[in-house]
Amino acid sequence: MKVIVIGAVAGGATVASQLRRLSDAEITVYEKDRDMSFANCGLPYYLGGEVAPRNKLIAATESSFKTNKSITVKTYHEVVSVSAENKEIVVKDIKNDRTFTDTFDYLILSPGATQIKLPVLQGNHVFTLRNLEDTDKIERFITSENVKNILIIGGGYIGLEVIENLKNRGINITLLHRSSHLLKSVDADMTKHIPEILEANGVELLLNDEVDTLEGKTVHLKSGREFNFDMIITALGIKPNTQFIQSSGIKLTDSGHIKVNEYFETNISYIYALGDAIQTKYRHVDYPAQIALAWGAHRAANIIAHNIVKSQSVQFKGLLGTNIIRLFDFTFASVGITPNMLDNFEYEIVQQTQKHHAGYMPGVEQISINVYYDKKSRKILRASAFGRVGVDKRIDIIATAMIGNLTIDEFKDIEIAYSPVYSSPKDIINMLGYKAEQK
Amino acid sequence: MKVIVIGAVAGGATVASQLRRLSDAEITVYEKDRDMSFANCGLPYYLGGEVAPRNKLIAATESSFKTNKSITVKTYHEVVSVSAENKEIVVKDIKNDRTFTDTFDYLILSPGATQIKLPVLQGNHVFTLRNLEDTDKIERFITSENVKNILIIGGGYIGLEVIENLKNRGINITLLHRSSHLLKSVDADMTKHIPEILEANGVELLLNDEVDTLEGKTVHLKSGREFNFDMIITALGIKPNTQFIQSSGIKLTDSGHIKVNEYFETNISYIYALGDAIQTKYRHVDYPAQIALAWGAHRAANIIAHNIVKSQSVQFKGLLGTNIIRLFDFTFASVGITPNMLDNFEYEIVQQTQKHHAGYMPGVEQISINVYYDKKSRKILRASAFGRVGVDKRIDIIATAMIGNLTIDEFKDIEIAYSPVYSSPKDIINMLGYKAEQK
Repeated sequence: MKVIVIGAVAGGATVASQLRRLSDAEITVYEKDRDMSFANCGLPYYLGGEVAPRNKLIAATESSFKTNKSITVKTYHEVVSVSAENKEIVVKDIKNDRTFTDTFDYLILSPGATQIKLPVLQGNHVFTLRNLEDTDKIERFITSENVKNILIIGGGYIGLEVIENLKNRGINITLLHRSSHLLKSVDADMTKHIPEILEANGVELLLNDEVDTLEGKTVHLKSGREFNFDMIITALGIKPNTQFIQSSGIKLTDSGHIKVNEYFETNISYIYALGDAIQTKYRHVDYPAQIALAWGAHRAANIIAHNIVKSQSVQFKGLLGTNIIRLFDFTFASVGITPNMLDNFEYEIVQQTQKHHAGYMPGVEQISINVYYDKKSRKILRASAFGRVGVDKRIDIIATAMIGNLTIDEFKDIEIAYSPVYSSPKDIINMLGYKAEQK
Repeated sequence: MKVIVIGAVAGGATVASQLRRLSDAEITVYEKDRDMSFANCGLPYYLGGEVAPRNKLIAATESSFKTNKSITVKTYHEVVSVSAENKEIVVKDIKNDRTFTDTFDYLILSPGATQIKLPVLQGNHVFTLRNLEDTDKIERFITSENVKNILIIGGGYIGLEVIENLKNRGINITLLHRSSHLLKSVDADMTKHIPEILEANGVELLLNDEVDTLEGKTVHLKSGREFNFDMIITALGIKPNTQFIQSSGIKLTDSGHIKVNEYFETNISYIYALGDAIQTKYRHVDYPAQIALAWGAHRAANIIAHNIVKSQSVQFKGLLGTNIIRLFDFTFASVGITPNMLDNFEYEIVQQTQKHHAGYMPGVEQISINVYYDKKSRKILRASAFGRVGVDKRIDIIATAMIGNLTIDEFKDIEIAYSPVYSSPKDIINMLGYKAEQK
């Protein structure tokens, strides 16, 4: 059995490893970029100096995969086309500038996604952060050019993580965002605090504005304002890397995502896909989900490995989209469908702000949680949370409750471990249930 | 409607408050001791100086209950007998040394429990810690006698919390425990680390030994060793305060606990009970549960209030017994049936030790979790956990999974919020599921 994997980062490297545990298949992984198996989610923290030395970011190398797992990984090898019918791919060996074909019994697509770039932003001081190579370039530029001030464009997850880290490193940071609603995955009544958190930490804000033109180091904004920056990092969002399979016979959505079923099969049974480039489904509601996060990639890797070894043996029930970010001393998190998807449901919302542990203990902080639940079934659709301490615990409890298909009323019964150090005899999770009872 | 509550601490004060929200009943609460509504679980932390000032421990007073809630609370009023049939109680007004009767339509028993005392331990430097009055006595004695060294007898929850706190205050502490297994609610392969944690924090240990006699300040142990201590605090365990209802017609278990059904009714439909003195049932298995913890008392208070207003309107599904303790920089926790109850089941165990968040991030620590599950149904029976960081989150996730009746295999699907700051793409919770798959 010959298996080809396209992409050698989180999804690709993990699925290859998982498959090796279960089979002696011949496995080849093609990666178009320089590096395999780097800790994608750790890149901002490396830039900030929190992760050091750099080799902590490298989970595995081509030679370690070869030696320990008998898996062949070829970096700087870009798959330029796939013929599903002929079970054949065309690969470009970038370093040697040559092209060859390879064949497979099973193909696993984990091509990931790319940061969207603005055509107006051209210049050797303009960067995006998507992989370790980008990170190295950013790091080198900051050091060699002695960068004093950076413009970050885009206040989503990546933008905010980069801001926190570069600010912690002592660089002057300005955030440009086209609206005033940062971090759209979290509820607006919570993210409205982000500007004040950023300002309290010395970050300059340019909200409700966009780049008009860039002249050397001078950024002209649409509002007419202009500023100089030593460096620009854009974090405008991502699009799936699926151009190379557009005429392959593999079905893509309008947004270019690879459609997979509950076995992570594409429309072609011997071609699987996982990671940031796929469209799967939500677990708790019958809607498609495009969730570019690591947890889902790792879960899919395990399921695909099982399903290649024994066809359709493991069925995936879907994602919740649980997500979380640290922003200076705050945590923001959410789980479930996105805010704009709520309109498809008749829902109620219950909100609670409460101390994260016994009020008489030192270091007590407030947590706020919003839970959206279906009016009839009272099952959870979405939750959003923020605070300084204990937010991760509560969002994970809610995610687990959603896996268990609990109603909001059953939150009263969730028996949180109580000691004044850790919670309250009626934790915020319980209080959400008690409050919903009154609706 | 006339409601009498016996006991004014966590269970009693909370049930009175909850009932007031739902009804205009005449409510009287009798409390045999000095104080009502104090933060029982905060007492050790007050002794350690972590909770200050003292009034933070007082949640409500007789006058605040009267003014804000029209609830009459009478402290130093001990109910000495109950006639279920005549709906009558006899009350001893301790201060005025007089006795009177009172009548009720509904009676709610929340008499709590008492620390067991060893007859051999007599002396004005011997204390137990059960309520605020005890705490005040201990505090006064430490200060006035300039106490330099204390013997704590009993290494359960209370004993360990007191040790941590008094040690943090700079007092020399010795722990005497009759076996070497401290904190029996947590698995022995985890609690075996407690002696080294205590010693690392400067606590002296006398394990596998017991007091033979006490002569003044000299403690003679059964091993023949003898030591002098300025002060002794015993924490040997508790027994329910139910002597006063032994001939009331209210059914007690052999251990003296009040039997309640799923409505928290005793065998007499208009008499309810909650708190440390009751026997209820486990949620996930069909076994009785005697769990003297605050979470259950608060949940019961709400359910009883509803059921008094509308008979048998809210049914309780049972307790999991989730419990947790901080011990210096460690956390120990468990959920589910006790270790010795496992023998009643055909079970498997899955164990995992794993980093609490991404290994490349600073401050990473190990967590260990044992999960016991039924061999056939694969439902969770018990879990035990320990580590320095993130133990509370994991035990709460497992408790929530048990509320949702998940199997160990479904742990793979629990979509933990991942960022390298908070977890791993395969969190320890997921890995427990993956590991169990192989069994």
